[in-house]
Amino acid sequence: MITGENYIGNQRSATGNKTYKTFNPQLNIENESVFTEATTEEIDKAVQLASEAFKSFRIMSGTKKAEFLNAIADEILALGDELIQTYCSETGLPEGRANGERGRTVGQLRSFADLVQEGSWVEATIDTAQPERQPMPKSDIRKLLIPLGPVVVFGASNFPLAYSTAGGDTTAALASGCPVIVKSHPMHAGTGELIASAIIKAAQKTDMPNGVFSNLNSSGIEVGQQLVQHSGVKAVGFTGSIKGGRALYDLAAQREEPIPVFAEMGSVNPVVVLPNALQLRGASLAATYANSITLGTGQFCTKPGLILGIKSNDLNQFIETLSDEIVKIEPSCMLHPNIIGVYENNKEKALSQNDLTIVANYEAEVKPNYAKQAITTVEGNTFLENSNLHHEVFGPYSIVVQCEDSKQLEQVISALEGQLTGTLIADNNEASEYLGVISALQYRVGRIIFNGVPTGVEVCPSMVHGGPYPSSTDSRFTAVGIHSIKRWVRPFSYQDWPNNLLPDELKNDNPLQISRLLNNTQTTEKI
Amino acid sequence: MITGENYIGNQRSATGNKTYKTFNPQLNIENESVFTEATTEEIDKAVQLASEAFKSFRIMSGTKKAEFLNAIADEILALGDELIQTYCSETGLPEGRANGERGRTVGQLRSFADLVQEGSWVEATIDTAQPERQPMPKSDIRKLLIPLGPVVVFGASNFPLAYSTAGGDTTAALASGCPVIVKSHPMHAGTGELIASAIIKAAQKTDMPNGVFSNLNSSGIEVGQQLVQHSGVKAVGFTGSIKGGRALYDLAAQREEPIPVFAEMGSVNPVVVLPNALQLRGASLAATYANSITLGTGQFCTKPGLILGIKSNDLNQFIETLSDEIVKIEPSCMLHPNIIGVYENNKEKALSQNDLTIVANYEAEVKPNYAKQAITTVEGNTFLENSNLHHEVFGPYSIVVQCEDSKQLEQVISALEGQLTGTLIADNNEASEYLGVISALQYRVGRIIFNGVPTGVEVCPSMVHGGPYPSSTDSRFTAVGIHSIKRWVRPFSYQDWPNNLLPDELKNDNPLQISRLLNNTQTTEKI
Repeated sequence: MITGENYIGNQRSATGNKTYKTFNPQLNIENESVFTEATTEEIDKAVQLASEAFKSFRIMSGTKKAEFLNAIADEILALGDELIQTYCSETGLPEGRANGERGRTVGQLRSFADLVQEGSWVEATIDTAQPERQPMPKSDIRKLLIPLGPVVVFGASNFPLAYSTAGGDTTAALASGCPVIVKSHPMHAGTGELIASAIIKAAQKTDMPNGVFSNLNSSGIEVGQQLVQHSGVKAVGFTGSIKGGRALYDLAAQREEPIPVFAEMGSVNPVVVLPNALQLRGASLAATYANSITLGTGQFCTKPGLILGIKSNDLNQFIETLSDEIVKIEPSCMLHPNIIGVYENNKEKALSQNDLTIVANYEAEVKPNYAKQAITTVEGNTFLENSNLHHEVFGPYSIVVQCEDSKQLEQVISALEGQLTGTLIADNNEASEYLGVISALQYRVGRIIFNGVPTGVEVCPSMVHGGPYPSSTDSRFTAVGIHSIKRWVRPFSYQDWPNNLLPDELKNDNPLQISRLLNNTQTTEKI
Repeated sequence: MITGENYIGNQRSATGNKTYKTFNPQLNIENESVFTEATTEEIDKAVQLASEAFKSFRIMSGTKKAEFLNAIADEILALGDELIQTYCSETGLPEGRANGERGRTVGQLRSFADLVQEGSWVEATIDTAQPERQPMPKSDIRKLLIPLGPVVVFGASNFPLAYSTAGGDTTAALASGCPVIVKSHPMHAGTGELIASAIIKAAQKTDMPNGVFSNLNSSGIEVGQQLVQHSGVKAVGFTGSIKGGRALYDLAAQREEPIPVFAEMGSVNPVVVLPNALQLRGASLAATYANSITLGTGQFCTKPGLILGIKSNDLNQFIETLSDEIVKIEPSCMLHPNIIGVYENNKEKALSQNDLTIVANYEAEVKPNYAKQAITTVEGNTFLENSNLHHEVFGPYSIVVQCEDSKQLEQVISALEGQLTGTLIADNNEASEYLGVISALQYRVGRIIFNGVPTGVEVCPSMVHGGPYPSSTDSRFTAVGIHSIKRWVRPFSYQDWPNNLLPDELKNDNPLQISRLLNNTQTTEKI
């Protein structure tokens, strides 16, 4: 049952006066539940509890943490249909999507449970002593990764489950041993509360310290600002707009003790279509991309918002077919009136740029909060001169840039800001003739895709979701996959430390049987 | 031969008007060579060359990069006595130290050469395709670490070789595939130029692209500021004061595209002495610590500047012996008149604090630029109330804090800022009674040492040199050891990429025979 209250650790609390409701974009009405925004005192209390919980949570065994993460997954599934219905009522997204995202979220929790249960993720590194070494004896030194401290996670509007309350950031942080305080996303506060209740139940069932998790309601920016500036908070995870992410990054950098902010922000996800591929299968590519652009109403951070080709009749034909295909697609609902408002605004701004041609613009009447898709095209020179055209339009919109030649194609790519993904559409033998283009693309992105679509982010160890700024604030980390745990940890060394006082991961007899770098050899052997 | 010119890539250049000289603190006179500060044009040119060089250097094979790094080591050794004499004349440090630091620098270069020659450091991670998977087929995804781009390295005053021109930051960045622009330290510009000439020779002998390395002279802060703000620069390494490091961090965070700054800054390196250890071997501990505090005239970033104990007669005795021992040590020369000026100032400021007792203060006359060591002591309460006492005094000075009990000891530790190291001096069975103290210490530092001294930073895979702010600006990385390469790289994914276009590290037949995480198993097998 949704109460509208915050979770300050295990305790429900709603002492504030500021309330708000979520919105059902499909029905175009407010939902019933009333949420109470967290107060400064509640924020302080949550951080204080998290700091206290950190003392025991940071040295908790992988087995115990795995129990906790698996219990969260179980409790999320136990929420059953209430979760799915709430999700749909707060997002306008269909049930299939809700189920899929729940599956992904549960899968993430279980994969991190496996990771910490197994234990080798701490990158244990041991160099044993050499007391006889000349001219100086060598100490015994042993290293592992340890958690940073309380982490604040901001829920994402477009992924209420997989990138929010119990999403990738929270799961990775908890797996590492960091308590988490979630700044709930106001558009899906009910979904967030249900997931928070599952986490709290799981924490209590598995004897986690009170404060290992809190969930704070907020409809504005103040709660988030206070959290990021709080001296007890040691790192921040964010998924959302460049404006929002950069504001948090700036606050964190200006603290007396600056803290890391991993913000995954905007991306237009350039797609380069090479001539032979266009000639051979331009029509099917157009259909595929019409679908990818409109998937989830264009509300994926990996939506292809920029298609780059070299001028030709085939490119003209591709643009025409893409336009025909995209207007055939039935418009769908966006997450919230604010989101569609921004989309309509940004689209109008894009469409009104000089020297740009509108080739598709869905005309028929649609229900409230349903987004009308559009495609535009522009010359390479114009694109290079007008950086307004480089920015993300969140929603079912894409622009095709017609370059003069491969040199200009390379220039256009090099002029782009950092991106999550880049895609190359090429014939089998064609790609090797465009190594300069590929190289330029690689330098601007975190992941490159061959003959596919950027939408769809597989959760696996080899995934990079992140990239050069502004696609993320720190390209040295991924936000998806088990290695995303590295955002929330730091290496720590023990020098000549007594064996009985070392953590199990570093003890001589390797009781956890993890893989360790022992005197430069990776092994599960004892010492 | 020292010319006083900059290296803008392979080209010597000195078009500016601003010149300066280095200083011989032992002789208390200026050295002869005249150095010309880099101009804005020279800075731009160096960054432009580095960006150009990056295009080929970032995809250079590990074997070629290893040749380059080993050639740098060879060329540094080939500088012979001129390097050692210049080093001594610019630092006041003895020849033995110069030789030792050269050995460490050459060793670092060769260990990074081994690392990139072997190749597994890129953390290749491969998840092969599952075209039959339901409900959706799984793509082939492959990940590795790639370099960020041109890196700016600031030379450190106290390590002209190991943490400067060809020191750990430069070596790790070059090993990763990042071109390096060094902002030479003005106090040892001659040493820096000699090392730069060795790097340039090595680059030319091994056919590196022009711009892979530049060395810029500067006596003030402008050159450094311009470099950090330059849009072509993608990361920064710094070793030095909190004030200097923080200023660079702030500049980098305020850029349109913020970039990572790894600054290794101040640390007082707390040492906790437990009662039984004091009782059993207080006198020998006092002698050991008198040496550690004055080693290298107290100019190590790991100097023990803070000793924490619990009030007792043994602690009183320890303080007395430490004081006796430290004034017996012959004062030695500091790096530069500015450095000794700051030391004398900070020491005076420390000595003048209320409720503090000066227990040792070297009295006799000393030569110019020679530092007089001092020890003070203070009550735990006073220390807790006066955060001025928490700050580093760079030089042969340390303060002993007398805590009421283990609870106050824990409070004092928890009140400290982040530190590079923490040390525990304990009897064999005593440590397990102070787990709260140990836990508090661990939370504040990057490395803890048992019954040793913090001075001496072993270069090995398990070393962590770094720690919570302000000991470093990003505790998620170490500045020393092979894993310091991770500061300058980012993960990058290829999705469904054709085998022939993949980098060798990710190709099916594993031509480099590196260790890879293949479908969640670490192996050197082919696919």
